[in-house]
Amino acid sequence: MRAFKLTITYDGTSFVGWQRQPNGVSIQQLVEEAFAPLVGHMPSVAGAGRTDAGVHALGQVASVTLDVDHSTTTVQRALNARLPPEVRVTAVEEAPPGFHARFDAVAKSYRYRMANGAWQSPFDRWFVWYSPVVRDLEAMRRAACRLVGCHDFASFQAAGGAATDSVRTIHALEVRDHGREVTIDVTGDGFLRHMVRAIVGTLAEVGLGARTPESVTDVLAARDRGAAGETAPACGLTLVSVRYGQEGERVKG
Amino acid sequence: MRAFKLTITYDGTSFVGWQRQPNGVSIQQLVEEAFAPLVGHMPSVAGAGRTDAGVHALGQVASVTLDVDHSTTTVQRALNARLPPEVRVTAVEEAPPGFHARFDAVAKSYRYRMANGAWQSPFDRWFVWYSPVVRDLEAMRRAACRLVGCHDFASFQAAGGAATDSVRTIHALEVRDHGREVTIDVTGDGFLRHMVRAIVGTLAEVGLGARTPESVTDVLAARDRGAAGETAPACGLTLVSVRYGQEGERVKG
Repeated sequence: MRAFKLTITYDGTSFVGWQRQPNGVSIQQLVEEAFAPLVGHMPSVAGAGRTDAGVHALGQVASVTLDVDHSTTTVQRALNARLPPEVRVTAVEEAPPGFHARFDAVAKSYRYRMANGAWQSPFDRWFVWYSPVVRDLEAMRRAACRLVGCHDFASFQAAGGAATDSVRTIHALEVRDHGREVTIDVTGDGFLRHMVRAIVGTLAEVGLGARTPESVTDVLAARDRGAAGETAPACGLTLVSVRYGQEGERVKG
Repeated sequence: MRAFKLTITYDGTSFVGWQRQPNGVSIQQLVEEAFAPLVGHMPSVAGAGRTDAGVHALGQVASVTLDVDHSTTTVQRALNARLPPEVRVTAVEEAPPGFHARFDAVAKSYRYRMANGAWQSPFDRWFVWYSPVVRDLEAMRRAACRLVGCHDFASFQAAGGAATDSVRTIHALEVRDHGREVTIDVTGDGFLRHMVRAIVGTLAEVGLGARTPESVTDVLAARDRGAAGETAPACGLTLVSVRYGQEGERVKG
Protein backbone atom coordinates (compact mmCIF):
# COMPACT_ATOMS: atom_id res chain seq x y z
CA MET A 1 0.00 0.00 0.00
CA ARG A 2 1.25 3.50 -0.92
CA ALA A 3 0.05 6.86 0.40
CA PHE A 4 -0.47 9.68 -2.09
CA LYS A 5 -0.80 13.43 -1.65
CA LEU A 6 -2.95 15.08 -4.34
CA THR A 7 -3.09 18.83 -4.94
CA ILE A 8 -6.36 19.88 -6.55
CA THR A 9 -7.75 23.09 -8.05
CA TYR A 10 -11.43 23.60 -8.77
CA ASP A 11 -14.06 26.07 -9.81
CA GLY A 12 -16.59 25.25 -7.09
CA THR A 13 -19.50 27.11 -8.72
CA SER A 14 -21.52 24.04 -9.77
CA PHE A 15 -20.73 21.74 -6.87
CA VAL A 16 -22.12 21.10 -3.38
CA GLY A 17 -18.61 21.54 -1.93
CA TRP A 18 -15.69 19.22 -1.23
CA GLN A 19 -17.54 16.71 0.90
CA ARG A 20 -19.95 14.06 -0.40
CA GLN A 21 -23.59 15.11 -0.02
CA PRO A 22 -26.81 13.33 -0.93
CA ASN A 23 -28.17 16.39 -2.76
CA GLY A 24 -25.61 17.05 -5.48
CA VAL A 25 -22.17 16.47 -6.93
CA SER A 26 -19.16 16.99 -4.64
CA ILE A 27 -15.48 17.28 -5.53
CA GLN A 28 -14.70 14.35 -3.23
CA GLN A 29 -17.12 12.11 -5.13
CA LEU A 30 -15.66 13.16 -8.50
CA VAL A 31 -12.10 12.41 -7.37
CA GLU A 32 -13.07 9.07 -5.83
CA GLU A 33 -14.97 8.09 -8.98
CA ALA A 34 -12.02 9.14 -11.17
CA PHE A 35 -9.82 6.68 -9.25
CA ALA A 36 -12.15 3.71 -9.76
CA PRO A 37 -11.05 2.58 -13.27
CA LEU A 38 -7.39 2.95 -12.28
CA VAL A 39 -7.49 0.93 -9.06
CA GLY A 40 -10.52 -1.33 -9.56
CA HIS A 41 -12.54 0.09 -6.67
CA MET A 42 -13.65 3.47 -5.33
CA PRO A 43 -11.09 4.48 -2.70
CA SER A 44 -11.76 6.86 0.17
CA VAL A 45 -10.13 10.24 -0.50
CA ALA A 46 -9.72 12.68 2.41
CA GLY A 47 -9.58 16.44 1.77
CA ALA A 48 -7.68 18.97 3.90
CA GLY A 49 -10.54 21.48 3.91
CA ARG A 50 -14.28 20.86 3.62
CA THR A 51 -14.95 23.74 1.26
CA ASP A 52 -18.62 24.78 1.09
CA ALA A 53 -20.83 24.77 -2.02
CA GLY A 54 -19.61 27.47 -4.42
CA VAL A 55 -16.19 27.85 -2.74
CA HIS A 56 -13.17 27.43 -5.01
CA ALA A 57 -9.70 25.95 -4.56
CA LEU A 58 -6.30 26.68 -6.00
CA GLY A 59 -4.48 24.24 -3.72
CA GLN A 60 -6.84 21.87 -1.96
CA VAL A 61 -4.89 18.83 -0.72
CA ALA A 62 -6.26 15.30 -0.53
CA SER A 63 -4.84 12.00 0.66
CA VAL A 64 -5.50 8.44 -0.45
CA THR A 65 -3.88 5.07 0.21
CA LEU A 66 -3.76 2.66 -2.72
CA ASP A 67 -2.38 -0.69 -3.73
CA VAL A 68 -1.05 0.33 -7.16
CA ASP A 69 2.23 0.27 -9.08
CA HIS A 70 1.50 3.32 -11.27
CA SER A 71 3.85 6.29 -11.29
CA THR A 72 2.58 9.56 -9.82
CA THR A 73 2.52 11.01 -13.37
CA THR A 74 0.28 8.18 -14.57
CA VAL A 75 -2.06 8.68 -11.60
CA GLN A 76 -2.29 12.42 -12.32
CA ARG A 77 -2.98 11.90 -16.03
CA ALA A 78 -5.59 9.22 -15.39
CA LEU A 79 -7.45 11.40 -12.90
CA ASN A 80 -7.42 14.48 -15.15
CA ALA A 81 -8.62 12.40 -18.10
CA ARG A 82 -11.73 11.45 -16.12
CA LEU A 83 -12.43 14.58 -14.10
CA PRO A 84 -14.60 17.37 -15.57
CA PRO A 85 -12.68 20.53 -16.64
CA GLU A 86 -13.88 22.32 -13.48
CA VAL A 87 -11.57 20.08 -11.43
CA ARG A 88 -7.86 19.52 -12.10
CA VAL A 89 -5.27 17.54 -10.19
CA THR A 90 -2.22 19.82 -10.31
CA ALA A 91 0.21 17.48 -8.54
CA VAL A 92 0.46 13.90 -7.29
CA GLU A 93 3.23 13.04 -4.85
CA GLU A 94 4.13 9.96 -2.86
CA ALA A 95 3.52 10.65 0.86
CA PRO A 96 4.74 9.01 4.08
CA PRO A 97 2.67 5.97 5.14
CA GLY A 98 -0.46 7.03 7.01
CA PHE A 99 -0.43 10.55 5.55
CA HIS A 100 -3.80 12.24 6.11
CA ALA A 101 -4.55 15.52 4.30
CA ARG A 102 -6.70 16.95 7.09
CA PHE A 103 -5.08 15.63 10.28
CA ASP A 104 -1.51 16.29 9.15
CA ALA A 105 -2.08 19.84 7.88
CA VAL A 106 -0.41 22.51 10.00
CA ALA A 107 -1.86 25.60 8.32
CA LYS A 108 -4.38 26.59 5.68
CA SER A 109 -4.58 29.80 3.67
CA TYR A 110 -7.75 31.22 2.17
CA ARG A 111 -8.31 34.25 -0.02
CA TYR A 112 -11.59 36.16 -0.10
CA ARG A 113 -12.21 38.57 -3.01
CA MET A 114 -14.57 41.54 -2.79
CA ALA A 115 -15.18 44.16 -5.47
CA ASN A 116 -16.91 47.51 -5.56
CA GLY A 117 -17.61 50.22 -8.14
CA ALA A 118 -20.60 51.03 -10.32
CA TRP A 119 -20.68 47.66 -12.10
CA GLN A 120 -19.42 44.11 -11.62
CA SER A 121 -17.01 42.62 -14.13
CA PRO A 122 -18.70 39.72 -15.98
CA PHE A 123 -15.45 37.77 -15.59
CA ASP A 124 -15.61 38.01 -11.78
CA ARG A 125 -19.22 37.06 -11.29
CA TRP A 126 -18.62 33.56 -9.87
CA PHE A 127 -15.43 34.46 -8.00
CA VAL A 128 -15.94 37.78 -6.26
CA TRP A 129 -18.46 39.22 -3.78
CA TYR A 130 -19.60 42.38 -5.49
CA SER A 131 -21.18 45.35 -3.76
CA PRO A 132 -21.19 48.90 -5.18
CA VAL A 133 -20.22 50.49 -1.85
CA VAL A 134 -16.64 51.47 -1.07
CA ARG A 135 -15.56 50.29 2.36
CA ASP A 136 -13.19 51.83 4.90
CA LEU A 137 -10.23 49.48 4.56
CA GLU A 138 -8.30 51.06 7.42
CA ALA A 139 -11.16 50.28 9.80
CA MET A 140 -11.29 46.73 8.41
CA ARG A 141 -7.54 46.35 9.02
CA ARG A 142 -7.85 47.55 12.62
CA ALA A 143 -10.64 45.03 13.18
CA ALA A 144 -8.62 42.26 11.48
CA CYS A 145 -5.69 42.84 13.89
CA ARG A 146 -7.98 42.00 16.79
CA LEU A 147 -8.74 38.57 15.34
CA VAL A 148 -5.14 37.53 14.78
CA GLY A 149 -3.80 35.12 17.40
CA CYS A 150 -5.27 32.29 19.46
CA HIS A 151 -8.94 32.86 20.29
CA ASP A 152 -12.19 31.02 20.86
CA PHE A 153 -13.94 31.64 17.53
CA ALA A 154 -17.34 30.23 18.65
CA SER A 155 -18.98 33.49 17.51
CA PHE A 156 -17.75 32.78 13.98
CA GLN A 157 -18.87 29.14 13.80
CA ALA A 158 -21.99 28.22 11.83
CA ALA A 159 -24.62 26.01 13.42
CA GLY A 160 -23.91 22.43 12.42
CA GLY A 161 -20.12 22.81 12.66
CA ALA A 162 -18.56 19.53 13.75
CA ALA A 163 -15.84 20.97 15.99
CA THR A 164 -16.08 20.21 19.69
CA ASP A 165 -13.46 22.83 20.50
CA SER A 166 -13.73 26.25 18.89
CA VAL A 167 -10.27 27.61 19.80
CA ARG A 168 -8.19 28.33 16.71
CA THR A 169 -5.10 30.37 15.88
CA ILE A 170 -5.09 32.89 13.04
CA HIS A 171 -1.51 33.55 11.98
CA ALA A 172 -2.27 36.35 9.54
CA LEU A 173 -5.36 38.22 8.36
CA GLU A 174 -4.58 40.87 5.75
CA VAL A 175 -6.89 43.27 3.97
CA ARG A 176 -5.35 44.43 0.67
CA ASP A 177 -6.48 47.17 -1.68
CA HIS A 178 -6.25 46.48 -5.44
CA GLY A 179 -8.28 49.46 -6.62
CA ARG A 180 -11.75 48.18 -7.38
CA GLU A 181 -10.96 44.87 -5.70
CA VAL A 182 -10.24 44.16 -2.04
CA THR A 183 -8.73 40.85 -0.98
CA ILE A 184 -8.75 39.36 2.49
CA ASP A 185 -6.03 36.74 2.99
CA VAL A 186 -6.20 34.59 6.07
CA THR A 187 -3.86 31.89 7.29
CA GLY A 188 -4.52 29.81 10.40
CA ASP A 189 -4.05 26.44 12.02
CA GLY A 190 -7.63 25.52 11.24
CA PHE A 191 -11.06 27.00 10.57
CA LEU A 192 -14.51 26.24 11.94
CA ARG A 193 -17.51 25.81 9.64
CA HIS A 194 -18.15 29.11 7.76
CA MET A 195 -15.51 30.81 9.94
CA VAL A 196 -13.69 32.61 7.11
CA ARG A 197 -16.96 33.81 5.59
CA ALA A 198 -18.25 34.99 9.00
CA ILE A 199 -14.97 36.88 9.57
CA VAL A 200 -15.25 38.50 6.12
CA GLY A 201 -18.91 39.38 6.73
CA THR A 202 -18.00 40.98 10.06
CA LEU A 203 -15.06 42.93 8.57
CA ALA A 204 -17.34 44.06 5.74
CA GLU A 205 -19.77 45.53 8.30
CA VAL A 206 -16.86 47.31 9.99
CA GLY A 207 -15.92 48.67 6.57
CA LEU A 208 -19.42 50.14 6.21
CA GLY A 209 -19.26 51.76 9.66
CA ALA A 210 -22.07 49.47 10.87
CA ARG A 211 -19.79 48.29 13.69
CA THR A 212 -16.51 49.62 15.11
CA PRO A 213 -13.14 47.88 14.76
CA GLU A 214 -12.95 47.68 18.55
CA SER A 215 -16.30 45.86 18.79
CA VAL A 216 -14.75 42.78 17.21
CA THR A 217 -13.12 42.01 20.55
CA ASP A 218 -16.60 41.92 22.14
CA VAL A 219 -17.78 39.63 19.33
CA LEU A 220 -15.02 37.14 20.20
CA ALA A 221 -15.89 37.36 23.92
CA ALA A 222 -19.60 36.75 23.26
CA ARG A 223 -19.01 33.19 21.95
CA ASP A 224 -22.37 33.57 20.18
CA ARG A 225 -22.86 33.37 16.40
CA GLY A 226 -25.47 36.14 16.66
CA ALA A 227 -22.79 38.59 17.81
CA ALA A 228 -20.78 38.46 14.57
CA GLY A 229 -21.71 39.73 11.10
CA GLU A 230 -23.47 37.99 8.24
CA THR A 231 -21.82 35.08 6.46
CA ALA A 232 -20.23 36.47 3.27
CA PRO A 233 -21.23 34.73 0.01
CA ALA A 234 -19.40 31.49 -0.82
CA CYS A 235 -18.37 32.56 -4.34
CA GLY A 236 -15.72 35.02 -3.08
CA LEU A 237 -13.78 32.35 -1.20
CA THR A 238 -10.84 30.27 -2.43
CA LEU A 239 -8.76 27.72 -0.50
CA VAL A 240 -5.31 28.82 -1.66
CA SER A 241 -2.92 26.37 0.00
CA VAL A 242 -2.40 23.88 2.79
CA ARG A 243 0.90 23.58 4.62
CA TYR A 244 2.35 20.38 6.06
CA GLY A 245 5.21 20.34 8.52
CA GLN A 246 7.13 18.12 10.86
CA GLU A 247 5.62 14.96 12.22
CA GLY A 248 3.57 15.65 15.34
CA GLU A 249 2.69 19.20 14.20
CA ARG A 250 -1.04 19.12 13.45
CA VAL A 251 -3.84 21.42 12.47
CA LYS A 252 -7.17 21.76 14.23
CA GLY A 253 -10.56 21.35 12.48
CA MET B 1 -31.39 63.82 -30.83
CA ARG B 2 -28.20 63.02 -28.88
CA ALA B 3 -25.41 60.60 -29.85
CA PHE B 4 -24.02 58.32 -27.15
CA LYS B 5 -20.82 56.29 -26.95
CA LEU B 6 -21.17 53.13 -24.83
CA THR B 7 -18.23 51.08 -23.58
CA ILE B 8 -19.21 47.46 -22.97
CA THR B 9 -17.52 44.43 -21.41
CA TYR B 10 -18.83 40.90 -21.84
CA ASP B 11 -18.15 37.26 -21.26
CA GLY B 12 -19.00 36.03 -24.75
CA THR B 13 -19.15 32.33 -23.84
CA SER B 14 -22.93 31.89 -24.14
CA PHE B 15 -23.63 34.26 -27.02
CA VAL B 16 -23.60 34.09 -30.82
CA GLY B 17 -21.31 37.15 -30.93
CA TRP B 18 -21.86 40.90 -31.06
CA GLN B 19 -24.08 40.95 -34.13
CA ARG B 20 -27.75 39.94 -34.23
CA GLN B 21 -28.23 36.40 -35.56
CA PRO B 22 -31.36 34.35 -36.11
CA ASN B 23 -29.89 31.34 -34.27
CA GLY B 24 -29.17 32.66 -30.79
CA VAL B 25 -28.72 35.58 -28.44
CA SER B 26 -26.30 38.34 -29.49
CA ILE B 27 -24.83 41.15 -27.39
CA GLN B 28 -26.26 43.70 -29.85
CA GLN B 29 -29.78 42.35 -29.32
CA LEU B 30 -29.38 42.42 -25.52
CA VAL B 31 -28.19 46.03 -25.55
CA GLU B 32 -30.93 47.13 -27.94
CA GLU B 33 -33.57 45.38 -25.83
CA ALA B 34 -32.18 46.94 -22.65
CA PHE B 35 -32.74 50.39 -24.18
CA ALA B 36 -36.40 49.75 -25.06
CA PRO B 37 -38.05 50.53 -21.69
CA LEU B 38 -35.91 53.67 -21.32
CA VAL B 39 -36.62 55.20 -24.73
CA GLY B 40 -39.96 53.62 -25.69
CA HIS B 41 -38.65 51.80 -28.73
CA MET B 42 -35.78 49.48 -29.68
CA PRO B 43 -33.02 51.68 -31.09
CA SER B 44 -30.34 50.52 -33.48
CA VAL B 45 -26.99 50.13 -31.67
CA ALA B 46 -23.80 49.86 -33.76
CA GLY B 47 -20.75 48.04 -32.40
CA ALA B 48 -17.13 48.84 -33.24
CA GLY B 49 -16.16 45.20 -33.69
CA ARG B 50 -18.31 42.25 -34.78
CA THR B 51 -16.90 39.82 -32.24
CA ASP B 52 -17.58 36.15 -33.06
CA ALA B 53 -19.50 33.65 -30.93
CA GLY B 54 -17.49 32.91 -27.78
CA VAL B 55 -15.21 35.97 -28.15
CA HIS B 56 -15.07 38.30 -25.14
CA ALA B 57 -14.76 42.06 -24.72
CA LEU B 58 -13.20 44.31 -22.14
CA GLY B 59 -13.79 47.51 -24.12
CA GLN B 60 -16.22 47.00 -27.00
CA VAL B 61 -17.59 50.38 -28.08
CA ALA B 62 -21.11 50.95 -29.40
CA SER B 63 -22.95 54.02 -30.68
CA VAL B 64 -26.61 54.95 -30.56
CA THR B 65 -28.61 58.09 -31.30
CA LEU B 66 -31.56 58.78 -29.00
CA ASP B 67 -34.18 61.40 -28.30
CA VAL B 68 -33.88 61.35 -24.49
CA ASP B 69 -33.21 63.80 -21.65
CA HIS B 70 -31.63 61.27 -19.28
CA SER B 71 -28.13 61.81 -17.91
CA THR B 72 -25.40 59.44 -19.05
CA THR B 73 -25.32 57.98 -15.50
CA THR B 74 -29.06 57.21 -15.69
CA VAL B 75 -28.62 55.56 -19.09
CA GLN B 76 -25.76 53.40 -17.77
CA ARG B 77 -27.70 52.34 -14.65
CA ALA B 78 -30.86 51.55 -16.63
CA LEU B 79 -28.93 49.39 -19.12
CA ASN B 80 -27.04 47.48 -16.43
CA ALA B 81 -30.26 46.90 -14.50
CA ARG B 82 -31.72 45.09 -17.55
CA LEU B 83 -28.68 43.38 -19.02
CA PRO B 84 -27.66 39.89 -17.83
CA PRO B 85 -24.53 39.76 -15.60
CA GLU B 86 -22.46 38.49 -18.56
CA VAL B 87 -22.75 41.97 -20.13
CA ARG B 88 -21.93 45.27 -18.39
CA VAL B 89 -21.92 48.80 -19.72
CA THR B 90 -18.78 50.27 -18.16
CA ALA B 91 -19.20 53.83 -19.47
CA VAL B 92 -21.74 56.01 -21.24
CA GLU B 93 -20.55 59.29 -22.76
CA GLU B 94 -22.14 61.95 -24.89
CA ALA B 95 -20.60 61.81 -28.41
CA PRO B 96 -20.44 64.29 -31.31
CA PRO B 97 -23.55 64.23 -33.56
CA GLY B 98 -23.32 61.40 -36.09
CA PHE B 99 -20.77 59.43 -34.04
CA HIS B 100 -20.54 55.86 -35.34
CA ALA B 101 -18.64 53.28 -33.27
CA ARG B 102 -17.40 51.30 -36.27
CA PHE B 103 -16.84 53.94 -38.97
CA ASP B 104 -15.18 56.44 -36.61
CA ALA B 105 -12.79 53.97 -34.95
CA VAL B 106 -9.13 54.50 -35.84
CA ALA B 107 -7.64 51.45 -34.13
CA LYS B 108 -8.69 48.31 -32.31
CA SER B 109 -6.70 46.18 -29.90
CA TYR B 110 -7.28 42.49 -29.27
CA ARG B 111 -5.63 40.10 -26.85
CA TYR B 112 -5.38 36.37 -27.46
CA ARG B 113 -4.54 34.09 -24.51
CA MET B 114 -2.89 30.68 -24.90
CA ALA B 115 -1.79 28.35 -22.11
CA ASN B 116 0.32 25.23 -21.92
CA GLY B 117 1.51 22.83 -19.23
CA ALA B 118 0.25 19.45 -18.01
CA TRP B 119 -3.24 20.68 -17.06
CA GLN B 120 -5.59 23.55 -17.80
CA SER B 121 -6.69 25.83 -14.98
CA PRO B 122 -10.44 25.44 -14.39
CA PHE B 123 -10.65 29.24 -14.08
CA ASP B 124 -9.26 29.73 -17.60
CA ARG B 125 -11.40 27.21 -19.42
CA TRP B 126 -13.67 29.72 -21.22
CA PHE B 127 -10.97 32.36 -21.74
CA VAL B 128 -7.80 30.65 -22.87
CA TRP B 129 -6.80 28.32 -25.69
CA TYR B 130 -5.13 25.45 -23.86
CA SER B 131 -2.69 23.01 -25.39
CA PRO B 132 -0.13 21.00 -23.39
CA VAL B 133 2.72 21.71 -25.83
CA VAL B 134 5.28 24.43 -25.18
CA ARG B 135 5.83 26.60 -28.25
CA ASP B 136 8.94 28.38 -29.52
CA LEU B 137 8.05 31.97 -28.70
CA GLU B 138 11.12 33.42 -30.39
CA ALA B 139 10.07 31.83 -33.69
CA MET B 140 6.52 33.16 -33.16
CA ARG B 141 7.94 36.67 -32.55
CA ARG B 142 10.00 36.52 -35.74
CA ALA B 143 6.90 35.49 -37.69
CA ALA B 144 4.82 38.21 -36.00
CA CYS B 145 7.29 40.90 -37.17
CA ARG B 146 6.57 39.94 -40.75
CA LEU B 147 2.87 40.67 -40.33
CA VAL B 148 3.29 44.15 -38.85
CA GLY B 149 2.63 46.95 -41.32
CA CYS B 150 0.29 47.48 -44.24
CA HIS B 151 -0.47 44.25 -46.11
CA ASP B 152 -3.17 42.50 -48.06
CA PHE B 153 -4.47 40.05 -45.42
CA ALA B 154 -6.69 38.05 -47.84
CA SER B 155 -4.95 34.84 -46.67
CA PHE B 156 -6.21 35.54 -43.14
CA GLN B 157 -9.84 36.32 -44.06
CA ALA B 158 -12.54 33.73 -43.44
CA ALA B 159 -14.97 32.86 -46.19
CA GLY B 160 -18.06 35.03 -45.75
CA GLY B 161 -16.12 38.11 -44.66
CA ALA B 162 -17.92 41.25 -45.78
CA ALA B 163 -14.85 43.30 -46.69
CA THR B 164 -14.37 44.18 -50.36
CA ASP B 165 -10.80 45.33 -49.73
CA SER B 166 -8.52 43.10 -47.66
CA VAL B 167 -5.65 45.58 -47.11
CA ARG B 168 -5.19 46.38 -43.43
CA THR B 169 -2.44 47.86 -41.26
CA ILE B 170 -1.22 46.08 -38.15
CA HIS B 171 0.47 48.62 -35.87
CA ALA B 172 1.75 46.12 -33.30
CA LEU B 173 1.71 42.35 -32.84
CA GLU B 174 3.42 41.22 -29.65
CA VAL B 175 3.95 37.72 -28.28
CA ARG B 176 4.47 37.80 -24.51
CA ASP B 177 5.57 35.06 -22.16
CA HIS B 178 3.85 34.84 -18.74
CA GLY B 179 5.18 31.44 -17.73
CA ARG B 180 2.39 28.94 -18.39
CA GLU B 181 0.46 31.56 -20.35
CA VAL B 182 1.35 33.24 -23.64
CA THR B 183 -0.51 36.34 -24.79
CA ILE B 184 -0.64 37.74 -28.29
CA ASP B 185 -1.59 41.43 -28.37
CA VAL B 186 -2.49 42.94 -31.71
CA THR B 187 -3.44 46.50 -32.61
CA GLY B 188 -4.48 47.54 -36.10
CA ASP B 189 -6.62 49.92 -38.10
CA GLY B 190 -9.12 47.15 -38.74
CA PHE B 191 -9.49 43.39 -38.96
CA LEU B 192 -11.11 41.08 -41.50
CA ARG B 193 -13.44 38.29 -40.44
CA HIS B 194 -11.54 35.75 -38.25
CA MET B 195 -8.29 37.62 -39.07
CA VAL B 196 -6.92 37.73 -35.51
CA ARG B 197 -7.73 34.07 -34.94
CA ALA B 198 -6.14 33.06 -38.28
CA ILE B 199 -3.00 35.04 -37.37
CA VAL B 200 -2.86 33.34 -33.95
CA GLY B 201 -3.40 29.91 -35.53
CA THR B 202 -0.59 30.58 -38.00
CA LEU B 203 1.79 31.84 -35.29
CA ALA B 204 0.89 28.78 -33.18
CA GLU B 205 1.98 26.51 -36.06
CA VAL B 206 5.24 28.46 -36.31
CA GLY B 207 5.67 27.92 -32.56
CA LEU B 208 5.37 24.17 -33.09
CA GLY B 209 7.92 24.19 -35.91
CA ALA B 210 5.24 23.15 -38.42
CA ARG B 211 6.08 26.22 -40.51
CA THR B 212 9.01 28.65 -40.49
CA PRO B 213 8.80 32.30 -39.40
CA GLU B 214 9.95 33.31 -42.89
CA SER B 215 7.10 31.38 -44.56
CA VAL B 216 4.60 33.88 -43.19
CA THR B 217 5.70 36.30 -45.91
CA ASP B 218 4.69 33.70 -48.52
CA VAL B 219 1.35 33.24 -46.76
CA LEU B 220 0.66 36.98 -47.17
CA ALA B 221 1.67 36.87 -50.81
CA ALA B 222 -0.58 33.88 -51.57
CA ARG B 223 -3.80 35.84 -50.86
CA ASP B 224 -5.43 32.45 -50.23
CA ARG B 225 -7.03 31.38 -46.93
CA GLY B 226 -5.65 27.88 -47.49
CA ALA B 227 -2.09 29.19 -47.20
CA ALA B 228 -2.42 30.33 -43.57
CA GLY B 229 -2.84 28.23 -40.42
CA GLU B 230 -5.97 27.00 -38.68
CA THR B 231 -8.35 29.49 -37.07
CA ALA B 232 -7.55 29.53 -33.34
CA PRO B 233 -10.51 28.87 -30.99
CA ALA B 234 -12.79 31.84 -30.26
CA CYS B 235 -12.62 31.50 -26.47
CA GLY B 236 -9.02 32.81 -26.26
CA LEU B 237 -9.87 36.14 -27.91
CA THR B 238 -10.86 39.42 -26.22
CA LEU B 239 -11.55 42.81 -27.81
CA VAL B 240 -9.56 44.98 -25.40
CA SER B 241 -10.14 48.52 -26.64
CA VAL B 242 -11.13 50.72 -29.53
CA ARG B 243 -9.45 54.04 -30.20
CA TYR B 244 -11.10 57.11 -31.72
CA GLY B 245 -9.17 60.04 -33.06
CA GLN B 246 -9.48 63.24 -35.03
CA GLU B 247 -12.37 63.76 -37.39
CA GLY B 248 -11.62 62.26 -40.78
CA GLU B 249 -9.30 59.58 -39.35
CA ARG B 250 -11.13 56.31 -39.89
CA VAL B 251 -10.65 52.61 -39.45
CA LYS B 252 -11.17 49.97 -42.09
CA GLY B 253 -13.51 46.97 -41.68
